[in-house]
Amino acid sequence: MAFDTPKNSVAWDIVEGLTTEIGPRLPGSDDEARAREWAVIKLKSLGFRNVHIETYDMPVWVRGEESAEVVSPFKQKLILTALGNSAATPKDGLSATVIGFNSLEDLKAAPDAMVKGKIVFVSHKMTATQDGSGYGAYGPARFIGPNIAAKKGAVGYLLRSLGTNNHRVAHTGVTRFEDGVSPIPSAALTVPDAENLERMLARAKAPLIIHMTLSPKQTGIHQSGNVVAEVPGSDPNAGMVVIGGHLDSWDLGTGAIDDASGLAITTAAAKRIMDGQQPKRTIRVVWWGSEEVGGFGSDAYYKTHKDDKVVAVAESDSGADKVWAFSYKLPETNKPLGDKMVTDFNKAGIIYQANNAHGGADIEHFVESGVAVFDLKQDATHYFDLHHTPDDTLDKINPLMLEQNVDAWEILLKNLSSTTEDIGLIPQKK
Amino acid sequence: MAFDTPKNSVAWDIVEGLTTEIGPRLPGSDDEARAREWAVIKLKSLGFRNVHIETYDMPVWVRGEESAEVVSPFKQKLILTALGNSAATPKDGLSATVIGFNSLEDLKAAPDAMVKGKIVFVSHKMTATQDGSGYGAYGPARFIGPNIAAKKGAVGYLLRSLGTNNHRVAHTGVTRFEDGVSPIPSAALTVPDAENLERMLARAKAPLIIHMTLSPKQTGIHQSGNVVAEVPGSDPNAGMVVIGGHLDSWDLGTGAIDDASGLAITTAAAKRIMDGQQPKRTIRVVWWGSEEVGGFGSDAYYKTHKDDKVVAVAESDSGADKVWAFSYKLPETNKPLGDKMVTDFNKAGIIYQANNAHGGADIEHFVESGVAVFDLKQDATHYFDLHHTPDDTLDKINPLMLEQNVDAWEILLKNLSSTTEDIGLIPQKK
Repeated sequence: MAFDTPKNSVAWDIVEGLTTEIGPRLPGSDDEARAREWAVIKLKSLGFRNVHIETYDMPVWVRGEESAEVVSPFKQKLILTALGNSAATPKDGLSATVIGFNSLEDLKAAPDAMVKGKIVFVSHKMTATQDGSGYGAYGPARFIGPNIAAKKGAVGYLLRSLGTNNHRVAHTGVTRFEDGVSPIPSAALTVPDAENLERMLARAKAPLIIHMTLSPKQTGIHQSGNVVAEVPGSDPNAGMVVIGGHLDSWDLGTGAIDDASGLAITTAAAKRIMDGQQPKRTIRVVWWGSEEVGGFGSDAYYKTHKDDKVVAVAESDSGADKVWAFSYKLPETNKPLGDKMVTDFNKAGIIYQANNAHGGADIEHFVESGVAVFDLKQDATHYFDLHHTPDDTLDKINPLMLEQNVDAWEILLKNLSSTTEDIGLIPQKK
Repeated sequence: MAFDTPKNSVAWDIVEGLTTEIGPRLPGSDDEARAREWAVIKLKSLGFRNVHIETYDMPVWVRGEESAEVVSPFKQKLILTALGNSAATPKDGLSATVIGFNSLEDLKAAPDAMVKGKIVFVSHKMTATQDGSGYGAYGPARFIGPNIAAKKGAVGYLLRSLGTNNHRVAHTGVTRFEDGVSPIPSAALTVPDAENLERMLARAKAPLIIHMTLSPKQTGIHQSGNVVAEVPGSDPNAGMVVIGGHLDSWDLGTGAIDDASGLAITTAAAKRIMDGQQPKRTIRVVWWGSEEVGGFGSDAYYKTHKDDKVVAVAESDSGADKVWAFSYKLPETNKPLGDKMVTDFNKAGIIYQANNAHGGADIEHFVESGVAVFDLKQDATHYFDLHHTPDDTLDKINPLMLEQNVDAWEILLKNLSSTTEDIGLIPQKK
């Protein structure tokens, strides 16, 4: 709110345009389709070549009404949001006794009889970390918690949001049920609501009963797509560098930090290269679809392009805060290129983290096949204050930090595109 | 979330109990009635005397469904909440062109023809201040803006929330329509939504149309009440000190800072006096009802008690942050008592603000009639981040600051109750 916007910022213009003119972009939705049309116009107007959409089909889950209330022994509404793939409750809702667990491990250890017929509540407090590692540590309570509860006979699942804020905005995200397990209604409470529920459980002298109503549904197969744009290189034999972020977002916010900023950063950096001397290697910028619900965009892209000569991949998908570290995975023979990059990044105040490059969900198939990968690590301390919530909006982005990201990506792209040095595949462990 | 709770804190126990076991307490609602019953049990268990409820009747407005969406030329949902006394839209909602104003003054200056048939949007950015004065400065956009728009023929009113936060929680509050003016649907957008709407208006090349649905209603006359408790003084002729806060709250949050904390602070301070040597003057603690919608509790209390010998009044109703200043209004003859208090407050690190005591809404009739009034001014810098939003929850209170408030109120009550010095009425300007 108090940030000054740099003038003529390509990155800011993309994030502002997408969040203002389109807003939320649920995978497979009409909103995501409008975003692709918007993207094509924007990328062509910026001067990119070979701008086009590559469509694919995918199953689409959509949110419905959602409400919950403690009805006994106290009486109070709770704010929550359904997890992706959650089942619906009966139309008039579901009432059941709540059983609370401090962690997913405690739920796993509980006998089925303790859980059967109840609403499971897992209140596992997530810790904020610069490297975002809290998501990996606490994430399973969302990713697989509902499935575990369903197998034990629970009739519903409530999660303390995987978030590090204390505002009454709930954090959604996808959950998965194994084949053969019937999905149960599953939702995330806001952090203040989860803390209130913990206090109620501690004070209740009788079973605590919640009435909850969720009406999400699986709507069948719909079209989604990736948007592709290029900065053509002068040497068609040198292979291409594939970068980008994801165009889809969760439906609650406007997808500013997740992940309009990733598109904006990578596209603005590629445009800087385009506006200078023609690069030797082609840079392909991809605005992937449907990252949030299982990588259908990533799968479709890889299926079509696995025989392309892709020599390097990188994705920006951790917000818009400062790039503080760099890591890479290159074949041994290309170590001098890595060393050169480390030197350049150090000059920009970005430290080197050895052996810590993993890429992102949208490029994972290339990484798994041994393509060289580069990580520009963003400060994630505040990322999980906003991630997957209504609060993921433009005002949360500091334009100066956004430009710092573009500067960092320009360093990466210059190094990768100004040489035709052969970059091979990294031998993969079997 | 990261605060340590002082052990055995009477004030914390009251705020935690009320927000956990009762939650929101809309004036005239069953929730507020449950809160009164809870209050009686709590005040008796603390040892207060003459604990009782004084009921009165009042008209009750209740919130319904609320949603809004920009439908052209862009398409995006907005998060908003109805203002108290807002009219409902037609059942299927209302679609109209939006006309934006930067301030209430700009709306006032607009010709009726510019506004007629449109949804008025006033986006007046509120400033955070230690003394909370921003609410007075920007408040009229909520208090009277809808009435002004209605008189000009607007069909709806949207306000940038009177708030200093940037989270997607909207700030409700009461608005008033003059007799003879038909109320229009009126709501507050969250700050990020208001900023997004401003950007949409700037980018739209065609009229910007919003579809909004609100279903609040006036439900007729219901019962509300004040809860009274006493610390009896040894000298029945010395008059009484009336202090307290308000028990009701808006329906969106749990009423932690507005105003469970005010009740808790004043009650805990009175209990400290009760637990020491018996005071000379009686201290009456009142937990007022229905402050949020027009002071029905204040009116009823004054009507019943205007002939009581009330010699001093004070209210706590600006949250739970640090008391940083003290002010008073006393008859000239009692200046030495004021000077003594200033010395005591200075020792506690609290500065003196001359001629700045106004009291609060619940004690205004006593203040208007010339009763001595005392203000313990709380730091309001962050109060309007939370005020009237879903985010008004227990986790926002720092227990150490809450205890600092109790310490400050104990200073006030010691000074007022340990003397039988006659405190007269302040001559009022006609």
